[in-house]
Amino acid sequence: MRKIAIVMGSDSDLSVMRTAADTLKALGVPFAVRVISAHRTPDQARDFARAARAEGYGAIIAAAGKAAHLAGAIAANTTLPVIGVPIKSSTLNGLEALLSTVEMPPGMPVATVAIDGAKNAALLACEMLAIEDAALAEKLSENRADMARAIAAKDEEIRLQFE
Amino acid sequence: MRKIAIVMGSDSDLSVMRTAADTLKALGVPFAVRVISAHRTPDQARDFARAARAEGYGAIIAAAGKAAHLAGAIAANTTLPVIGVPIKSSTLNGLEALLSTVEMPPGMPVATVAIDGAKNAALLACEMLAIEDAALAEKLSENRADMARAIAAKDEEIRLQFE
Amino acid sequence: MRKIAIVMGSDSDLSVMRTAADTLKALGVPFAVRVISAHRTPDQARDFARAARAEGYGAIIAAAGKAAHLAGAIAANTTLPVIGVPIKSSTLNGLEALLSTVEMPPGMPVATVAIDGAKNAALLACEMLAIEDAALAEKLSENRADMARAIAAKDEEIRLQFE
Amino acid sequence: MRKIAIVMGSDSDLSVMRTAADTLKALGVPFAVRVISAHRTPDQARDFARAARAEGYGAIIAAAGKAAHLAGAIAANTTLPVIGVPIKSSTLNGLEALLSTVEMPPGMPVATVAIDGAKNAALLACEMLAIEDAALAEKLSENRADMARAIAAKDEEIRLQFE
Amino acid sequence: MRKIAIVMGSDSDLSVMRTAADTLKALGVPFAVRVISAHRTPDQARDFARAARAEGYGAIIAAAGKAAHLAGAIAANTTLPVIGVPIKSSTLNGLEALLSTVEMPPGMPVATVAIDGAKNAALLACEMLAIEDAALAEKLSENRADMARAIAAKDEEIRLQFE
Amino acid sequence: MRKIAIVMGSDSDLSVMRTAADTLKALGVPFAVRVISAHRTPDQARDFARAARAEGYGAIIAAAGKAAHLAGAIAANTTLPVIGVPIKSSTLNGLEALLSTVEMPPGMPVATVAIDGAKNAALLACEMLAIEDAALAEKLSENRADMARAIAAKDEEIRLQFE
Amino acid sequence: MRKIAIVMGSDSDLSVMRTAADTLKALGVPFAVRVISAHRTPDQARDFARAARAEGYGAIIAAAGKAAHLAGAIAANTTLPVIGVPIKSSTLNGLEALLSTVEMPPGMPVATVAIDGAKNAALLACEMLAIEDAALAEKLSENRADMARAIAAKDEEIRLQFE
Amino acid sequence: MRKIAIVMGSDSDLSVMRTAADTLKALGVPFAVRVISAHRTPDQARDFARAARAEGYGAIIAAAGKAAHLAGAIAANTTLPVIGVPIKSSTLNGLEALLSTVEMPPGMPVATVAIDGAKNAALLACEMLAIEDAALAEKLSENRADMARAIAAKDEEIRLQFE
Repeated sequence: MRKIAIVMGSDSDLSVMRTAADTLKALGVPFAVRVISAHRTPDQARDFARAARAEGYGAIIAAAGKAAHLAGAIAANTTLPVIGVPIKSSTLNGLEALLSTVEMPPGMPVATVAIDGAKNAALLACEMLAIEDAALAEKLSENRADMARAIAAKDEEIRLQFE
Repeated sequence: MRKIAIVMGSDSDLSVMRTAADTLKALGVPFAVRVISAHRTPDQARDFARAARAEGYGAIIAAAGKAAHLAGAIAANTTLPVIGVPIKSSTLNGLEALLSTVEMPPGMPVATVAIDGAKNAALLACEMLAIEDAALAEKLSENRADMARAIAAKDEEIRLQFE
Repeated sequence: MRKIAIVMGSDSDLSVMRTAADTLKALGVPFAVRVISAHRTPDQARDFARAARAEGYGAIIAAAGKAAHLAGAIAANTTLPVIGVPIKSSTLNGLEALLSTVEMPPGMPVATVAIDGAKNAALLACEMLAIEDAALAEKLSENRADMARAIAAKDEEIRLQFE
Repeated sequence: MRKIAIVMGSDSDLSVMRTAADTLKALGVPFAVRVISAHRTPDQARDFARAARAEGYGAIIAAAGKAAHLAGAIAANTTLPVIGVPIKSSTLNGLEALLSTVEMPPGMPVATVAIDGAKNAALLACEMLAIEDAALAEKLSENRADMARAIAAKDEEIRLQFE
Repeated sequence: MRKIAIVMGSDSDLSVMRTAADTLKALGVPFAVRVISAHRTPDQARDFARAARAEGYGAIIAAAGKAAHLAGAIAANTTLPVIGVPIKSSTLNGLEALLSTVEMPPGMPVATVAIDGAKNAALLACEMLAIEDAALAEKLSENRADMARAIAAKDEEIRLQFE
Repeated sequence: MRKIAIVMGSDSDLSVMRTAADTLKALGVPFAVRVISAHRTPDQARDFARAARAEGYGAIIAAAGKAAHLAGAIAANTTLPVIGVPIKSSTLNGLEALLSTVEMPPGMPVATVAIDGAKNAALLACEMLAIEDAALAEKLSENRADMARAIAAKDEEIRLQFE
Repeated sequence: MRKIAIVMGSDSDLSVMRTAADTLKALGVPFAVRVISAHRTPDQARDFARAARAEGYGAIIAAAGKAAHLAGAIAANTTLPVIGVPIKSSTLNGLEALLSTVEMPPGMPVATVAIDGAKNAALLACEMLAIEDAALAEKLSENRADMARAIAAKDEEIRLQFE
Repeated sequence: MRKIAIVMGSDSDLSVMRTAADTLKALGVPFAVRVISAHRTPDQARDFARAARAEGYGAIIAAAGKAAHLAGAIAANTTLPVIGVPIKSSTLNGLEALLSTVEMPPGMPVATVAIDGAKNAALLACEMLAIEDAALAEKLSENRADMARAIAAKDEEIRLQFE
């Protein structure tokens, strides 16, 4: 089974991105976590991206804040799908990271999820692997069913509370 | 080979989304184009999404403008990866469509590309299929090389113009 | 008398939406509170919306945050008036929920109130019922008079404080 | 049958709001069109709002641009539901009108629709009247079915075009 | 000497607007503080504005948050200069109040200051009175000189700290 | 009678600001029009501001676009009231000029009007002069009455058109 | 004398950036114009940046639109000062390019100028070279004097027009 | 060696700007710290800027919040490069300061860094001095290498943590 890379531009992003690791672990999908900066360690970013397919990765999650170039820098060096997670900053609330991540020029896509959307990044990576992996697709369906049941339980609880 | 769905919320989106179709055709990836509205034909959106995996789709591109719910409505009914294309409007320039598409709640990811980013949506879909398809991955790499050569030619031309 | 539905996309929205319930209770308007997610329980959203008129509802209040599709998903399945309450998030302050709720395409209106505007959602629902209900209209007028008196009292108090 | 008021702050708004009149006419709902300014004719705004229920109005659509106070000024003087239509300006694209219309303080709701959302304002007004009017509700349902059929026809046309 | 009115839409605005009162007191300019709501007590807003010139006011400071209509509602009923103070809210940080206050249509100006700009509102009111009042103009100049001296002292202190 | 200065940062602003001159002329208020740049002719800006009161000016209108510093630069050098007009740009639609003009720090107010709000700037200047000038106040009242009559005429015309 | 590089991410940026070339030519500063893409030719971007100091460049102007990573990608590979020019797009007006360029993380500065600010980018580059080049500093001063004279001439012309 | 000026509009900006001083000290670059306000001490701003080159400064860092005019006011009076640091405010998060600083009109550049970007302002100033100073350029390269090593260490640590 192909593995997923969770790459972040700074170790301070780990508090948000740990959820991505937890989600992959819960779904039994192998992954690695890396700290690589598009600006401070650009060669590592390039080398990691270029080697990723050969090293068995199926998709790369890239999380960064502010002028978030990491996802784009990785996408420029691989044809594996790259999932961008804009990280909220203390100034512009993550809007700058969102625009820096999603508004990529034609030819170089980044699959962007919500600001601080670590969980969805992991689920999206799994959905990509599950295109050809029926067992993983089944796990994702069960995950959906669990979410629906949780909402239904809350619905029951709150509905009764106001009856 | 799995095929790609290009779904749009209104036939007026076709002027933007035709590029996605052209890109898939050029890469030899089979696809279908559909007009399905999350609000005006919600049952079709649900039914299409639920049947998509079984009908041989590998990923779904969903394009919509304004309060763009189409990608989310489809994502809610399939575990196939859903790629959202926010379409520019005449009022808020597509910012509303971008936020309506990308800021999905935890559990239900949409892989969002740039406003009017039809070409990147198609390329992203191909990257997903190419995780397990070496021939398609090779075509994507050639596409990258073509882009690099085009830039290099422009570089030469403009560099000389100012020498 | 027709009743009002207060539907929210997550039980975490209850801290904001309790005010809507309190307002309806104070005005003697019957209501139910539900937790239904456009994305996690889409069938329930559809079924609830389609049955609402027959079950005696006169208007539906739908509260959701982030890429808030709940009001639109309900509106797509009923011709009862749907009132959207955008819920503030930790990232974009509710702007994304506001735009996702209010910028509906032609044909499918959502009556949108302010971000976290639970009280106004309830009052708006009552105003709709009061079109044909003189007694409720009278109660709303009294409510207005109470607000005016409260402002006048504060005016007196603060005016004197600075004399 | 109660009638609908379409009030606009400037005669230049008529180019947008004519659609609201056309929509009401098509649905057979009686209406009047007025030009009343919250700032230039504030007494007329107040007097119109105060008399509206007695004069047989069931809901008031108020359209204004820039610092759009019209809907709020009318809402302050009636307990009829007031529907606000933010009109796009040449500078801030209607965002200022949207925020000026929707972010009403607690106690004084305005049912806000999309920027330039004249058609949805008319449909929302009809939905309010249709709470107790089964025939109008039926017409609205037919309108929905027509929209669905139009989308389905476009779907068929475009789907075949790309087969 | 003409006096200044400080009007606010809610008594909760007093925590911000107290600075305006303090500033006027320090400059020896008479003033009154009022709580009047454009939406909850619209008649008082109108009556106050219409009587203001005759009652000896020279300018009116109007502070309000969210869809801030107070300054405009007062301006619509007097030709005295009206100074608008947008109050920061818990959701959109005062941007909505700024746009609702400043983007007035042609014919009805509001002299808008910064979000929560209570001090500047008071100083601006004094500048208006000082057009024809040399003594007050002199006081304002002294106030400027005091500010310059305070900055110069801080400059000295911090400059030395880093030498 | 004190006169009004209309200062603009670039002669290209004249297309917008001509309306201010026309408005002052129609109200019989003397004025001068100047092109002075906060950045390109900073000494002239300072000298003009410092001499303005002695030269008989009662208020200064300052119009500038982009990072609009002109109003603030003048305000820093006079205690006359300064009215700022943010000019729309080709990139950010005037939002940057609005924020650069209105968000002045405590101690240095600028009376800001709407983006491209030349007419309101002139009317606001007249309102300031009219604090102590009953004849001018009367002219402003007549101007208001004219506006109200124009709206009423449009109201009549459009109301009949839809009857 | 050190030369200036004008690098742009796409040849379509030339219509904006030609002004930078013209400005450098007028000031007699040597320069080269290049088309290099952070995403499509990332190796060229890196190699160019790494060699730039040795090849005699003194500063690098980098212009790009949308998720503009070019300036940052170059800055990551040189300690020469990098000047970023955000290019206006058809969707978000250049705001996305501005934020992507200016909000660089600590350690990796980009000297950002206004959206489409090609002329200022060239002048800023010259100011950098002029730190140690008195003759160039003198030329820049003359350029300032020319601008001041042009403003003064316009001032004279327009002042007289309204006298 | 030329020295760097760190100028701030208010002593309250020191909490952010201290980092700039620390950075310059660590790199052995001489500097002075000043508090000068564009609005409260405009003459000092002008005089400081005009004398700066003669007094041995090589670049000026100017930090200010809200309608941040300081960098522009200094740039208007020197041809030394001016680096603008927009300071975050309690209302608009620094966006207003960013736009007020960066969107300078043609002819008068300000090298703008990120909101609260004190460290990058200092590094950018050093990069300017290092154009002709090989020793300083070497120190900047070492600084980059240190940052890269720090990231690599974090990468190692976190990678192992998840293995």
